[in-house]
Amino acid sequence: MSSQNKLIFLPLGGAGEIGMNMYLYGYGLAGKERFIMVDLGVTFPAMDGTPGVDLIMADPAYIEARLDRLDAIFITHAHEDHIGALGLLYPKLAVPVYARPFTAAVARAKMEDRGQDPWVVQVVESYPKQIEAGPFKVSYLPLAHSIPEAAGLIIDTPAGRIVHTGDFKLDKDPIVGEAYDPALFAEVAQGGIKALVCDSTNVFSPEAGRSESTLNSNITKLISDASGMMVATTFASNVARLKTLAQAGVDAGRSVCVLGRSMQRMMAYAHSTEVLGDFPPLIELEDAQTVPRENLMLIVTGSQGEGRAASAQLARGKYLGLTMQEGDTFLFSSKTIPGNEVSVGRIVNSFSEMGVKVIDDTSGMYHVSGHANRPDLEEVHDIFKPQILIPMHGEHRHLREHMELAQSKGIASIIAPNGAMIDLTGKKPKLIEHIETNRLYLDGNQLIGAFDGVVLERIRMATRGLVALSIIIEEDEVIGVWAEAMGLPDTLGTQTSLNELIELAVEKELQSAKRKLLNSDDEMDRLVTRIVNRICKDAVGKKPVSQVMINRLVAD
Amino acid sequence: MSSQNKLIFLPLGGAGEIGMNMYLYGYGLAGKERFIMVDLGVTFPAMDGTPGVDLIMADPAYIEARLDRLDAIFITHAHEDHIGALGLLYPKLAVPVYARPFTAAVARAKMEDRGQDPWVVQVVESYPKQIEAGPFKVSYLPLAHSIPEAAGLIIDTPAGRIVHTGDFKLDKDPIVGEAYDPALFAEVAQGGIKALVCDSTNVFSPEAGRSESTLNSNITKLISDASGMMVATTFASNVARLKTLAQAGVDAGRSVCVLGRSMQRMMAYAHSTEVLGDFPPLIELEDAQTVPRENLMLIVTGSQGEGRAASAQLARGKYLGLTMQEGDTFLFSSKTIPGNEVSVGRIVNSFSEMGVKVIDDTSGMYHVSGHANRPDLEEVHDIFKPQILIPMHGEHRHLREHMELAQSKGIASIIAPNGAMIDLTGKKPKLIEHIETNRLYLDGNQLIGAFDGVVLERIRMATRGLVALSIIIEEDEVIGVWAEAMGLPDTLGTQTSLNELIELAVEKELQSAKRKLLNSDDEMDRLVTRIVNRICKDAVGKKPVSQVMINRLVAD
Repeated sequence: MSSQNKLIFLPLGGAGEIGMNMYLYGYGLAGKERFIMVDLGVTFPAMDGTPGVDLIMADPAYIEARLDRLDAIFITHAHEDHIGALGLLYPKLAVPVYARPFTAAVARAKMEDRGQDPWVVQVVESYPKQIEAGPFKVSYLPLAHSIPEAAGLIIDTPAGRIVHTGDFKLDKDPIVGEAYDPALFAEVAQGGIKALVCDSTNVFSPEAGRSESTLNSNITKLISDASGMMVATTFASNVARLKTLAQAGVDAGRSVCVLGRSMQRMMAYAHSTEVLGDFPPLIELEDAQTVPRENLMLIVTGSQGEGRAASAQLARGKYLGLTMQEGDTFLFSSKTIPGNEVSVGRIVNSFSEMGVKVIDDTSGMYHVSGHANRPDLEEVHDIFKPQILIPMHGEHRHLREHMELAQSKGIASIIAPNGAMIDLTGKKPKLIEHIETNRLYLDGNQLIGAFDGVVLERIRMATRGLVALSIIIEEDEVIGVWAEAMGLPDTLGTQTSLNELIELAVEKELQSAKRKLLNSDDEMDRLVTRIVNRICKDAVGKKPVSQVMINRLVAD
Repeated sequence: MSSQNKLIFLPLGGAGEIGMNMYLYGYGLAGKERFIMVDLGVTFPAMDGTPGVDLIMADPAYIEARLDRLDAIFITHAHEDHIGALGLLYPKLAVPVYARPFTAAVARAKMEDRGQDPWVVQVVESYPKQIEAGPFKVSYLPLAHSIPEAAGLIIDTPAGRIVHTGDFKLDKDPIVGEAYDPALFAEVAQGGIKALVCDSTNVFSPEAGRSESTLNSNITKLISDASGMMVATTFASNVARLKTLAQAGVDAGRSVCVLGRSMQRMMAYAHSTEVLGDFPPLIELEDAQTVPRENLMLIVTGSQGEGRAASAQLARGKYLGLTMQEGDTFLFSSKTIPGNEVSVGRIVNSFSEMGVKVIDDTSGMYHVSGHANRPDLEEVHDIFKPQILIPMHGEHRHLREHMELAQSKGIASIIAPNGAMIDLTGKKPKLIEHIETNRLYLDGNQLIGAFDGVVLERIRMATRGLVALSIIIEEDEVIGVWAEAMGLPDTLGTQTSLNELIELAVEKELQSAKRKLLNSDDEMDRLVTRIVNRICKDAVGKKPVSQVMINRLVAD
């Protein structure tokens, strides 16, 4: 082992995938490094792969095993993929948590939701103010993104300065929050940047990003041209967009009402932390119900087609007494996240059935991304001139593209997917070792490992169906066999043909089975499972999951 | 009831959705119409909504109940969403089936796959040849699409001529099959068109469609510039694209090998029905394994990320002894169908991890759609000048857009989603009544109704887990309770804490329960289910599905 202090970077989640961000920085002698953690996010489950799971997050096992060497957690911004696991994983980590005011307000609520002390989350001032954590000095660099008070982290270490961008875009007029200031970036870069750990989400977007401020006139015109009720949706946490939409509504002469719990909550955080500035006047639901629809604009939750959100409820019929009808307009001021196309499509079609005009982001006029596009990334590379660039926040293909972009400009770069421990000490990044990483699932109220088999068992029942069998044995004799098929064709009555087929076959084979077999639960289980598979494959073409319960009666 | 003969159109599937096309045309007195059916397609299941299901199709119940009045089935082309249910539903219908040669070759194989007589499928010649079926005379109009020998149907009825386009594009140089011929269209239109029932898939695509023939030079350049092995994928049935890709490979000086069972099969149908024309030379797998990778091009299955196809296998490591490596190029000469983004993304990221360069359709240079875009649809409207336009083949939003496009040109139009019986007799289309439509699932070897509850039961087990209980009662006394939780946290050992918790609680409550309750299976079931819900909600935060099996021992 080296006797030199090393500066290391280790992503535990969010690298090679979009979601559940969790990064470690370490500094010190090998095996004695002090660590800080950046972000504790979640990703969302799907029927395909994680049915019934509530949330997915990176497993912090690596740092749990070295907990005495973790000094602090820094949260870059309040999106779920950066903060969503805080309340759930905090009990395992229990070190100070830092965040800017808006983010801290969300973080504290997350802590309370999970029964944790909200006040361990400490509010920080931004750059040039520094927080010391072991060998690290960390400063929050305000950056524009699709949520208030996003920030990069300027991490000063004995081996040099790191800029960890978090999620960001370059926006000189972001409507909410600090504008992009190239001079400030240049000041941060002055002493030289050891490593830029940088958002890669939009590396495939060839045009420079557009400012939030470019949207107002397009949206105002859209609303002015609309005849019926106007309804718009966006991400609840995109408070700047809420402001853009509300302002456009007011500019078009409409009364504006914001609906949906998560939007209300985000607005409340934004108000309490005073990030909103002058927000256009809103009306309450009761008043909205009396405004003529051609004078009304609703801003609602559910841009991703979430089944319980306001947009889906409006698409199904009614939300809080409000309904949409022919001639109304619905605007998706958002992009559809890959994987949500079908649920968003369902809403669009429902609105189409009602005669509601649906406008989406196809034209590029009603939504701007919260991430830096390729030319913006290049601008940031050029200002910071880092020795090393580590692409972050992207699927593997994004990381690769970003690495190649950096290398094309002579910046040393490496792809660091989850578990890749990278040594940043030298001029070039080096892969030291690969750490096994895992995912945790919040399933009901339990945290389980992705490989525990619980969810796999559910997937097997979902695709193959189930046969439960209760077998009663008394003194080496089978006296009862009961089969109940679930989720198999022809099995929905209380006593049906498939159940009977299975019972008859199992009874027959067990009655002719050797006593030795009847005495072994394992052997009986295997035999009965084989019989169930054979009967079901033949009768319905599927081999179900079997649950064999062997009850042995013993004489008193 | 009217005493007049009516011409009616009734979609049973594929209208208001993309997939499982099934349309009826009827002519005659109300209640005595003679019918023909057009297409019998499937749509594909997903974990989200239809876990474990093999195929989904429209339920032909309406026409089954009037089977003596169905005269024939006409298949427009061999895509699964138009032909996939033929072998499965034929036994319910059993009338002559017509198709062009290539389509018939596929149709016959579908029939054989399901144990049906392939020779009921009759090969037809195309326009001006007519097939008589009751009051209908049907002629096949060759149209370009992304499969050989697609065709529209010219349906002559006593009430006028209908053109049912099927899926089509306008392509004056389609590489395989007949070129678009406006003069032929004009000839068909000469006597006047009563109704145009028209593909709506690409009504939102604003630019005129491009010809298949525009791709060769782009793809040839891409291949020439590639250094390592070149691999391309597209839909197996897109035989023209196979030819384009193979020709580009040969033009770039490579040996070309086609891999993947479904592609081999489609090539065989194409060869046997002589639709291919001069196909570039191909090499066999054994030879491909000896060609230097920079001289090799593979054309493989799996453009939609299908887990078992060649592309996914290459992404996971190896396919038929071939592997991809850094410096190779993989081309998606295809579009990703909504809903498949995640599975396609998985492959792209795996290739990125290997260092394989992935090219997709983003640039529009390597793929053209098989459907008519908006200006092409307008061209068709203008040539046919139909009295009525019925938008077909699209989600509801596509149908609406197409209807509005037609109306904007003074063509009478109506949206006819599944189950809408439309009267085409008069100058304007009229909704006569709404027929209940349903879906059938192929589940294993059984056809079940979508609302039978089988799949719902599987979804419930997938999201909530299951507790199976075996309870033994002897002479009004509970002598044994056995609980087995499946797919729930903390339940994977053979005897675990959750199972014990449930068993203890159930035993305790049953022992103190009234004799009357113990004598009723239903009451016991309800009580036990309540106990299971309470214990599990408390212990793991989920209310599972319960399967309670009550075994009553009776004295001999």
